[in-house]
Amino acid sequence: MSGEQSNSFMARAIQLSLENVRLGRGGPFAALVVKDGRVISEGTNLVTSENDPTAHAEIVAIRRACLALATFQLTGCEIYASCEPCPMCLGAIYWARLDRLFYACQAEDAARAGFDDSLIRAELSLPHQGRRIPMLQLMREEGLAAFEAWMANPNKIPY
Amino acid sequence: MSGEQSNSFMARAIQLSLENVRLGRGGPFAALVVKDGRVISEGTNLVTSENDPTAHAEIVAIRRACLALATFQLTGCEIYASCEPCPMCLGAIYWARLDRLFYACQAEDAARAGFDDSLIRAELSLPHQGRRIPMLQLMREEGLAAFEAWMANPNKIPY
Repeated sequence: MSGEQSNSFMARAIQLSLENVRLGRGGPFAALVVKDGRVISEGTNLVTSENDPTAHAEIVAIRRACLALATFQLTGCEIYASCEPCPMCLGAIYWARLDRLFYACQAEDAARAGFDDSLIRAELSLPHQGRRIPMLQLMREEGLAAFEAWMANPNKIPY
Repeated sequence: MSGEQSNSFMARAIQLSLENVRLGRGGPFAALVVKDGRVISEGTNLVTSENDPTAHAEIVAIRRACLALATFQLTGCEIYASCEPCPMCLGAIYWARLDRLFYACQAEDAARAGFDDSLIRAELSLPHQGRRIPMLQLMREEGLAAFEAWMANPNKIPY
């Protein structure tokens, strides 16, 4: 598939990303969740307007799609994002079990506009000791009790 | 710092992770955001009870802390998580600009209980072509307009 190919869902995502800037709601990003050729949800970046650093367009669209479909897994759905997802959003796309991801701009395009998730990408591949945000372990033995309770619980809903 | 050291915030996170299993609200995970020795927010995993695949404990705690402090950045705060964060949550911790991360259990402990984010961790380090969720680029040129609008906007709130 060519990076030039036109697509109505992506055109809508791009339109929403532009509107998001004009309306001052957050960064220049939008995403759509689509199932069987139908738009299930639309999301834009709402970080600054909703005081939520996790409100990236993809996360907003995934949360709204799950609400609309009353499910915590979006198998059979695709996501159209106006830009390549950051590591947080890519993680969310895997947890939501989306079938496919379409994106328009690349990480480099976002970086040029001041959104540099390359730092986060690099940090994730470092060992704990080398990361900018220190990671310190405490009370592992005590913490294991929750996993034991989970495994012993016959009524659990795995995901 | 020893993995055995006791800490009241972590003890609270572990208690919440256990309660979350008993109450059937989601996976065996909890997290606290702390600032200047005071708990700002508590979060537990609510994926299955709220139909939200992004509602991991850390994300829930970060969202609640930002709401409580009316900010989209948690500089000066620390997060206590009952388990090492998955890539989605680690990304959120970076976006939220938390100062430090404390965790009890390790990724391997979660994997043994059926929560295997090692797949996601591995996928993030693969080139696009090798990933299980196909990533396809469309309409990059059109998408760039949103970044241009962003850069030209004198009223933007960078984050």
